[in-house]
This record gives sequence, C-alpha cells and structure tokens, in this order.
Amino acid sequence: MKKTPGKVPCNPFSQRLGGVARRAAEKGIDALIVFSQANRRSLVDVDCDNGALVVEPGRKTVFYTDFRYTTMAERVAPWLDVRTMWKAKDETKALARMGRRWKRIGYEGSVAATRYLRMKEAFPDAELVDVQRELLLARAVKTPREIEAIRAAEALTCGIWEEVRAWARPGMTEKEIQRRVRALMCERADGEAFDTIICAGANAAECHHVPDGTVWKPGRPLLADLGAKAGGVCSDMTRNIVPEKPDARYRKAYATVLEANMAAIAAVKPGAVCGDIDAIARSIIDKAGYAGAFGHSLGHGVGFEIHESPNFAPKSGTVLEPGMLVTVEPGIYLPGKLGVRIEDLVLVTETGCEVLSAASPK
Amino acid sequence: MKKTPGKVPCNPFSQRLGGVARRAAEKGIDALIVFSQANRRSLVDVDCDNGALVVEPGRKTVFYTDFRYTTMAERVAPWLDVRTMWKAKDETKALARMGRRWKRIGYEGSVAATRYLRMKEAFPDAELVDVQRELLLARAVKTPREIEAIRAAEALTCGIWEEVRAWARPGMTEKEIQRRVRALMCERADGEAFDTIICAGANAAECHHVPDGTVWKPGRPLLADLGAKAGGVCSDMTRNIVPEKPDARYRKAYATVLEANMAAIAAVKPGAVCGDIDAIARSIIDKAGYAGAFGHSLGHGVGFEIHESPNFAPKSGTVLEPGMLVTVEPGIYLPGKLGVRIEDLVLVTETGCEVLSAASPK
Repeated sequence: MKKTPGKVPCNPFSQRLGGVARRAAEKGIDALIVFSQANRRSLVDVDCDNGALVVEPGRKTVFYTDFRYTTMAERVAPWLDVRTMWKAKDETKALARMGRRWKRIGYEGSVAATRYLRMKEAFPDAELVDVQRELLLARAVKTPREIEAIRAAEALTCGIWEEVRAWARPGMTEKEIQRRVRALMCERADGEAFDTIICAGANAAECHHVPDGTVWKPGRPLLADLGAKAGGVCSDMTRNIVPEKPDARYRKAYATVLEANMAAIAAVKPGAVCGDIDAIARSIIDKAGYAGAFGHSLGHGVGFEIHESPNFAPKSGTVLEPGMLVTVEPGIYLPGKLGVRIEDLVLVTETGCEVLSAASPK
Repeated sequence: MKKTPGKVPCNPFSQRLGGVARRAAEKGIDALIVFSQANRRSLVDVDCDNGALVVEPGRKTVFYTDFRYTTMAERVAPWLDVRTMWKAKDETKALARMGRRWKRIGYEGSVAATRYLRMKEAFPDAELVDVQRELLLARAVKTPREIEAIRAAEALTCGIWEEVRAWARPGMTEKEIQRRVRALMCERADGEAFDTIICAGANAAECHHVPDGTVWKPGRPLLADLGAKAGGVCSDMTRNIVPEKPDARYRKAYATVLEANMAAIAAVKPGAVCGDIDAIARSIIDKAGYAGAFGHSLGHGVGFEIHESPNFAPKSGTVLEPGMLVTVEPGIYLPGKLGVRIEDLVLVTETGCEVLSAASPK
C-alpha cells in the first residue's frame, strides 16, 4: 500500500530534502536515517562530522548531533528539530526509540557495518532499504548556489595552475611543488579538495602517485592533478607541462589523450548516457594502440566531495541532466615510461556543456 | 579446536602484521580481510585509498589494489603478493574465490554495510568476526619510527603556534587566521591533520566551531585547536590566547581547565586506566561548579589518523602502555559566554609520560 507523499517542513533552500522525502514516501518508506556528512549537508545545509538526520515524510525533520555541534546546528538551521545525540553504546536503544511503528527504513549502504548491525538489532521486524544511490543522485544535480561555488573553486584552481606554470622549474622536486600548491590553496581557499598529485617524468604512469623527492628533470614532462576546496565544495583538474621537445612516444600519447578528452567533452549533453561517453574516449585510446593503458573510468561527479555521482564509467547507464558536474579525464599510463592525463571539469547545461577548467594549455 | 599460530612472511619493519596474524590464529580465525586505509597501512606500510589486505596465518599476505596503485605497492612492499583488485560489481564473486574453506573470517566493523552484506553473501556459511578493535589496539602502541614522526609533527605544530602568537592580532577574523595557519602547515608539512579550529571570544563555546568571518575583538580570548600532518602522521594541540585583563569568569574557567589538564597528565603512566584519568580531570571541573560543561572525552589516541585508540573516555577500561600516544584535552564550554580547552599530546613512557606539546603558555 502506497502512503500519500508527505510534505517535509524545511527551509526553502533545500528542495532536495522535500524531493528525497517525497520519493521515499512513494516507495513506502516510513523514515530515512541519514548518517553521512555530505548527504546530511546536502539535505539540510548543516556541515559537521557527526550526526544523524531522521526524515519522516509529513513530520518535522530531526537532526541528532553531539555536544560539539548542537549550538552551531541550531544557529544554522533553526527550522530543524535539533537534539543531542546518544552515546555510541546506547545507539541501539536510541534508534529503537525513534520509530516503533516503522516498517520500512531507508539507510545508507555506506554506513559502517557496526552501525548497520545496530539498526538491524533496533528494528528487528523492519525492512532496511539501501537508499544510498537515491541520496547520491539527489546530490548529482547541483543547486545554482552549488554550481556557482564549484565554478569559483575551479577558477581559483586554474589561477593557481597558471602560477605554477610560471614558477615551476626543472630541478625542483615533486614534493616541493606539491607543498607550494597546497600553501596557495590554503591562503586563497580552504585548502585542497584532495592530495595534490605532482608527477615528474615516468612517475606519471602511477596515476595516483604520491609526490616524493623525485627531481623534475630538464626535458621531461610534469603532470599535476589538483583541486582547491573553497566555499565548502571541491574542484578538480589535471594538466601537463609538456617539454619543448618531447620524444615521439610522449607526443603520440599526449595527442591521443587530448583527442579523447575533446571528443568526450563534445558528447556531453543532457540525455547522453555516461557509459557511451566513456566508450567514445576509450575507443580513441584503444584504437591508437593503447588498449589496457587507460585503467580507470573517464570521470566522476564533483561537489561537496571530490568523488560524487554520476560515475562516468564504462557501462554506466546514468543519463546526464542539466546541473550535473563531471570530470572528463582520459589517460594513458605506460609503467616505467610515461603517463598522460588531461582532466576538465564540465557542467551539463540545457543544450550541451560548459567547460569550467579555463586553464590552458591542456 | 585451536590452530597452531602461524607465521606471516613479512618485512621486518612490520611486527604488527605478525602479531595480528598470531592473535587471529589463536582465536581460530582463518583469515583477516582488511579494507581500511589506516589499518592496511599500519600492517604493511603501503598507503593508498583503495585496497584489501588478506592475512592468512601461515601464508603470504595478499594485497589487492586497483590499477592506480599496483606499481607503487610493488615498489614499496615487494614482499607482498600484490594483485589487481576486482571491480566493485564483482566483489562478491572475488571474495568467494578467496577462501572456500574459511570458517571464521575477521573483518572490520568500520567497513560499509554494502561491503559487509557482500561478505555475508560470499561466505554464507562462515562466521564473520569483527576484529576492528584488535586492529585499532595493535595500532595504539606506536613503533619507534612512528613516535619520532609524531614528535616531529607536534614540534612543527608548536613552532607554528608560536608564530601565530606573534602575528595574530585583534581585528583579524577567525577565517583569516585559520587560512594563514593552514598555509604554514602546507609549506612546512603535508597540511592539516584536521580542519584548524580558530574561535574568537564566545565562539569557543562551540568546541568544534567552524571558523568564519567573526572578528577577534580586543580584550577577548582566542582559542586555537591545530595539528599539522607530516611524515604521514598527525599532531594535535589546543591553546588559548588569554587577554591581558580577562574577566573573573574567564579567569576561573581557564584556571580550572589548566588544573584539570595538569592533574590528568600527572596521572598518565603505564598501567593507568583511561577512564580513571578522565575522571580525575572531570571531577576537578565538576567540583569547580561546571558540571555538564565538559561534554566530550578527555582525549584520544593520535597516529596515522587524528582519532585513534585508545579512547580516553569516561568508563574506558583501556590500560595505558608505553608507546601509546594520547591527547589530554579537558574543556569548559558555556554557550554564549566562553569556551576554554587546553590540549597536550602525551607519550606514555616506561615510567610515566612525556608531553610532546612544547608550546607555551597553555
């Protein structure tokens, strides 16, 4: 039996919360329990590292958090019913008290197994339904405010990259360059969205290389994957400093990756299927003789977290919608020889897409 | 039936891996599957954000990781059996192939529920045993190399704090101070171990306050909770800039917290029970008339992660051992009025403890 989709009293900014509650009610879910920081934040705009949001269609949303955050939560979201969180050891009892009549409970598959088992114990007769995918998809289409924040963060990252190009010199170590990039991101923004990757020469074949004391040698390429965190959102971009006279092997790999990047971006538009766009880039790389050398997905969503929905991967059936933000980052990795990756952050618009990564050259 | 504790072929640096495997064998566990980054790293010194370590007593340890990290893992730990990780959708099958004869499997309670449910599906007849606590306790006693790294990280944090004291001035905003601290940590280390907390005046009553545009007013206190990440480990410290003429209310709260901090540190030694030391600090605060105003635990372990074992909490029965590293951070929080917290990082030695937070005054 379907329940009548209920309303959730909430601040007007959060259309997501209302939408998520409506879809839950349509599925006969009595309540959603949301533990993850980014999911909570995407629904009620309160950002803190411990809490549980209880969304019951038709009732006031309850936000449990601990002593450290109650004052802040009440200030930021006075429209929420903020309550002090239980101690970890009392979690089962606290959960059980929440909703004795709940028969179907939405939970996030990302919660710790310990927490999942406590929910099972607290609600032995209820059905636990994994709604993680729905919560992530609700975040995939950004609000205008989020888009502007991500646009600004990406512009800041591009600006820093232009400076890196100006001061980075062969003879510096990867670590040295990484530290300066980080410091710039801290001075101008809220630091890094992820550990800045700097790869000198063949280290770029490790596509998540941890920068070390490797010296960037003259005549060799440098790869940088960087993104500042600013205004509470992430940015992401990968560029390469190509030597003046790269060898033929590097030239070919670079040209192939650039072609794959541009072809994929040209295909990004509402209605396009993620897996199809991945295939466009991948087939260019494979046909150029690099089959197997592009071992990761074409890209990922970006938002509060650096990796969000949609997953821009082979066989992904997700359909792009206006307001989604994805990276397009094909690469070629030949261990011991070279690595090239070119990554742009792309906003799906009503008619196609807009590349937010203004830094050039790629 | 007990199995004979087996040996685990491993690099000499990792005595932990051997110890963890021995204790698992003693409990009749056939294999441990370790997914978490810090636990994996503590056992095999390979640091990457995706992987599964399979520890079978008596067999070579297997490390599954994805395309991005295999080259690095083989370089860092050539003694491991490094294998390419499965795709997420194949996880159940891949797990099932691992050990058809396993009857008791150790897992981390911190893994995502999704992963736990896949394990249940892959090993329907096996018993899953949560060994998270054992893995965390194995990390609680640090290796000499880890201690030196944490000591260096804390010294670096103290150095930065001394500089902050020199340049921070009323009129600056919390955010401004936070950004400069972050930039210093990025230039000299690997950035922050956690989001730097800067609280002007009564904002310190929110003990995990997110720094904002609040201006630090003349004659008001400033609280800073900061820790650099360096050499792959964390540091942690909280200090207050006390105004020249604090009011009586602040003076009393500050003196009480300082007394609680010093009394607790004096009690830190091998054999002491964490809960007892928490009680020493808490009773000083309660007796001074602040019952209920110290809403968090006395402290926590620090290592690869900012919050590790032991948990320095009321009723914690954990017994301190030489080589453990804990914060001692009592606080008093009076919403809208004031907040004081004094936090030192303390190393348990053979005879007592050593305070690693050299910055003064507290």
